[in-house]
Amino acid sequence: MPSALILIADGTEEMEFTITYDTLVRAGVSCTSAYIAPADDKGGLEIGNKTAPPFATGSRGINILPDRYFAPLELGPDKFDALVIPGGAKGAETISSNSPVQHLVREYFNKGKVVGMICAGSLAAKTSNLPKQALTSHPSVKTELEKDFDYSEEPVVVSKNLVTSRGPGTAFPFALTLVELLCGKDKREEVRGPMVFPSSTPW
Amino acid sequence: MPSALILIADGTEEMEFTITYDTLVRAGVSCTSAYIAPADDKGGLEIGNKTAPPFATGSRGINILPDRYFAPLELGPDKFDALVIPGGAKGAETISSNSPVQHLVREYFNKGKVVGMICAGSLAAKTSNLPKQALTSHPSVKTELEKDFDYSEEPVVVSKNLVTSRGPGTAFPFALTLVELLCGKDKREEVRGPMVFPSSTPW
Repeated sequence: MPSALILIADGTEEMEFTITYDTLVRAGVSCTSAYIAPADDKGGLEIGNKTAPPFATGSRGINILPDRYFAPLELGPDKFDALVIPGGAKGAETISSNSPVQHLVREYFNKGKVVGMICAGSLAAKTSNLPKQALTSHPSVKTELEKDFDYSEEPVVVSKNLVTSRGPGTAFPFALTLVELLCGKDKREEVRGPMVFPSSTPW
Repeated sequence: MPSALILIADGTEEMEFTITYDTLVRAGVSCTSAYIAPADDKGGLEIGNKTAPPFATGSRGINILPDRYFAPLELGPDKFDALVIPGGAKGAETISSNSPVQHLVREYFNKGKVVGMICAGSLAAKTSNLPKQALTSHPSVKTELEKDFDYSEEPVVVSKNLVTSRGPGTAFPFALTLVELLCGKDKREEVRGPMVFPSSTPW
């Protein structure tokens, strides 16, 4: 069973996070969300004798309980087939400026694992010093990326094992592209059907 | 500022919930999610000296912390401009079979407030005894609805103040339709732009 590690922080765009996680689960991908704490970590919740990561408050106020804390040594490319970074301005800032995350992004990319970034999450390609290649992002961070990458305005850009996309409106084709890369084209179609997209939807 | 009450339970489809809530917040709608406990209520989380509702485990395993417990006397049509019921087979079953919810649905509908139902959430139109009218749902529950309603296969069906839709793949046009009804056509366009849908997207 393929597996994916999906990062989340306060300010993560909750639609991009949820659409990616849920669509991958529908394809049989085992998903784990890991919480990247801000500099002023608010600490975990005590539940019985365990400490759960605190909930992440999304960019529009939905509180999501991540599956675990981020611990880079336990989350390397030997453990997961894909690493995904969602957008949301504040969440993407926290994630992309975290140096253990940057190291992990390079490891996943260099080992040929699927690396997905959407919206402002694409900033992590720059902060992680990934090689110049085709990439897209939310238009609001285009100017920060166009010098270091071959900037595209396609909804989803696949460059080797780096998959980038633009925003909530492209999150479904982004997630379905990850399904196709991890599970094949047939699985993409199998997952897409029951979601009931309108007939002229272009993905 | 318009306001919306969005119900959530264990087994709610987390994309449908999140896309609706997030899109409405982008339009300036004040959203409140209320947790419908299952028959075997697992109880609230003690945090300091307060009891928060337990997290709702979505249909694909994402844990969401609702804003509050469901308490029908505090959540009537005098308090909110819209009531929304997301899908997810198990979540929709819990919500639509809850008799205080059924009473609330009738109250919102009869007072002319916007009532939104998506996917299996449309079952609540039947369990609440709403009058026969145009409606859609996820194809998997069509047979349960087609005798009592004028069943449609359009992505989003607006019948008076009842708005119904089909699944995760129609959640964006469903949410944008709610924005249009609550905030007007200009706000719909204003919210839609920054989401960056691919150019030929049919909504």
